[in-house]
Amino acid sequence: MKKIVLIVMDGLGDRPSKVLGNKTPLQVSYRPTMNRMARAGITGLMFPISQGVRSGSDTSHLSILGYDTLKVYSGRGPFEAMGLGMEVRKGDVAFRGNFATRDNEGRISDRRAGRISESTEDLCEAITMNVDGYQFTVKPGVEHRAALVVHGEGLSANLTDSDPHESGLPPEEVRGIADDDEKTARVINKYLSLTREILDNHPFNLERVREGKLPANEFLIRGAGKAPDLEDFNVKYSMKGACVVGIPMITGICKLAGMDPIAAEGVTGRADSDYESKIRAAVNSLDRYDFVLVNVKGTDVAGHDSDPILKRDVIERADRAYRQLLTDDLDVVVAITGDHSTPVSYGDHSGDPLPILIYAEGNRVDGSSLFDEVSCARGSLRINSADLMQYLLNVSDRAEKYGA
Amino acid sequence: MKKIVLIVMDGLGDRPSKVLGNKTPLQVSYRPTMNRMARAGITGLMFPISQGVRSGSDTSHLSILGYDTLKVYSGRGPFEAMGLGMEVRKGDVAFRGNFATRDNEGRISDRRAGRISESTEDLCEAITMNVDGYQFTVKPGVEHRAALVVHGEGLSANLTDSDPHESGLPPEEVRGIADDDEKTARVINKYLSLTREILDNHPFNLERVREGKLPANEFLIRGAGKAPDLEDFNVKYSMKGACVVGIPMITGICKLAGMDPIAAEGVTGRADSDYESKIRAAVNSLDRYDFVLVNVKGTDVAGHDSDPILKRDVIERADRAYRQLLTDDLDVVVAITGDHSTPVSYGDHSGDPLPILIYAEGNRVDGSSLFDEVSCARGSLRINSADLMQYLLNVSDRAEKYGA
Repeated sequence: MKKIVLIVMDGLGDRPSKVLGNKTPLQVSYRPTMNRMARAGITGLMFPISQGVRSGSDTSHLSILGYDTLKVYSGRGPFEAMGLGMEVRKGDVAFRGNFATRDNEGRISDRRAGRISESTEDLCEAITMNVDGYQFTVKPGVEHRAALVVHGEGLSANLTDSDPHESGLPPEEVRGIADDDEKTARVINKYLSLTREILDNHPFNLERVREGKLPANEFLIRGAGKAPDLEDFNVKYSMKGACVVGIPMITGICKLAGMDPIAAEGVTGRADSDYESKIRAAVNSLDRYDFVLVNVKGTDVAGHDSDPILKRDVIERADRAYRQLLTDDLDVVVAITGDHSTPVSYGDHSGDPLPILIYAEGNRVDGSSLFDEVSCARGSLRINSADLMQYLLNVSDRAEKYGA
Repeated sequence: MKKIVLIVMDGLGDRPSKVLGNKTPLQVSYRPTMNRMARAGITGLMFPISQGVRSGSDTSHLSILGYDTLKVYSGRGPFEAMGLGMEVRKGDVAFRGNFATRDNEGRISDRRAGRISESTEDLCEAITMNVDGYQFTVKPGVEHRAALVVHGEGLSANLTDSDPHESGLPPEEVRGIADDDEKTARVINKYLSLTREILDNHPFNLERVREGKLPANEFLIRGAGKAPDLEDFNVKYSMKGACVVGIPMITGICKLAGMDPIAAEGVTGRADSDYESKIRAAVNSLDRYDFVLVNVKGTDVAGHDSDPILKRDVIERADRAYRQLLTDDLDVVVAITGDHSTPVSYGDHSGDPLPILIYAEGNRVDGSSLFDEVSCARGSLRINSADLMQYLLNVSDRAEKYGA
């Protein structure tokens, strides 16, 4: 039985970039470690969820870990909240939130209140309150971001957003999608109207206006959901699972699955994260864990920023760190892929398939020689993300026999 | 319309073998017939059940024949029993059995009673009896093996094994998995305690002890199941089906599906089976049948024995026999694949995909030139075992139109 290191390079897949001579950032990168693993293993394409689906990081990570998103996924809110260290109990409803700027006419003039650089800790505390027996708890995220968890009896998560998703429009009323959901919508709308008064008059915002900055006087919420009831990863696969992840939402998903988060120094969840440190933490955890998920976020950040050079640089720095996985005394299965594509030419997630490599001493080799979108399209593997865990259990000699 | 010969080389798929220069037994074998069929047909990979699943021979044969194992499979017992020629009626519960050695402290000292070489016919008869209105019938298999069929009212198959699955432990009580199953468990436990007295004092065992051999004084049972209600193969596919199979369990599955077993001389179910005879029997049956399943068991035996040279030799002998399928007057679809992989380096079933070739005059050719795990990974086919029959119906011009 081997241990397993699964590296998810967030938003890895790309399309040809004009500035890179119609090659992808992965194609033009210097990546001797990944290419060596490709030669000693097999490569191919992985479809997040299924072919052509433009998945989010939450849905695709759930699927990669073998959970059926159609059954367990009901909105990003709870994942964001858990990632911020908030407790999301069974029955709670959670939202993602933005502090935004509402103008005198009640319209949202900036959905991010100028991307706040100060801590919004005080603002979040000010709008943490009890309304009609329902507890509303808000915690700050990065910049203008925050999460809201609502706790109480008989809550529904079938709700529309208050976030109008573009500026120039007023915040929307939260609406229940079915009749039963109206009660939840009413108490949330009551809460939101109470927050407006508090935020308008909060010293944090009075100070911002004085300084000529945009006030954070509207709390826009979106992505209502309940915490999914995930089968325990450690039981489901009979192996102890850990994760080395820099982004709250993915940490939240892993924790919800019963996996232990492993801390690593210099991890930022941005393009400047210390990948040597992450891989070292993953390798060091293998004496206690059978499976470690590592998320490399920088590739996705560069994709969203439409920066092909940054994406290439992130890939090259990560590739150097992966050398730690090739020492002789480490008998592990290494799988490297992405959770979805984030082409720099598109600046957002796309449904393009992902290059994948699976390297495991003693297993089959398929004659692949390079790890990139185009070369992997000629590799032998075609796999949906939902089947990946079963595949890894097999090549690590951990799969249970079905039949006799 | 063509006739179809489907050859399942049991446990065919493999991983690189160090003693074969990191090639698989199939890769190093001299296999001109299969390679010729690959060139004249198409190749690719087949996933038994689905990607990475470590299937048994029972589940994978059911799936290859187009039956949904999730719906029809409830344990190996009934397949083993039917393979031994026992009748398994609707509502009966069947188990696989081992004659084992129980020491003076009531512990199993050898799960196979030293692999018995004499017939256990008398022992089986001695423990065939009626208990509280339930009929217990036992028939001998190869060596220490046997099968038990329980017939009576209101039986459940949701039962644990009495086999402790390792030596040094006492036999376990059979337990019902849900409350409703307790009644069945009770009568089976009563039966097992009665067999202990009979076996301890049976002349067969007294003689063995006198000869210094391990007595076969415990009947361990496992793999409780009911005969699945399989749709008749001949109706399901509108073709008459037969099988040339040397192993009882697979014959049992085929009979349950309504297929006729075809006898062939020299068939042993082991590596020394006469493949020329098997293929001849298959070819000769084509005047009466539309579809013949041939199982070649030797590849699996060699895999379990971790013997790469034996596996190569079995493949080479089988390949020579397949020449009979290439005569000009035979217009058949030939499909060659495995039911699961049994890598010699692993010594047991693995979830690695299987090489497959489909050769059918007048059908598409995909430019494949060799039949082995690595070359087939570059072939065009990617297919789950459950879809194989539909694929074969199409290339034999037998598929019914879906729509207009």
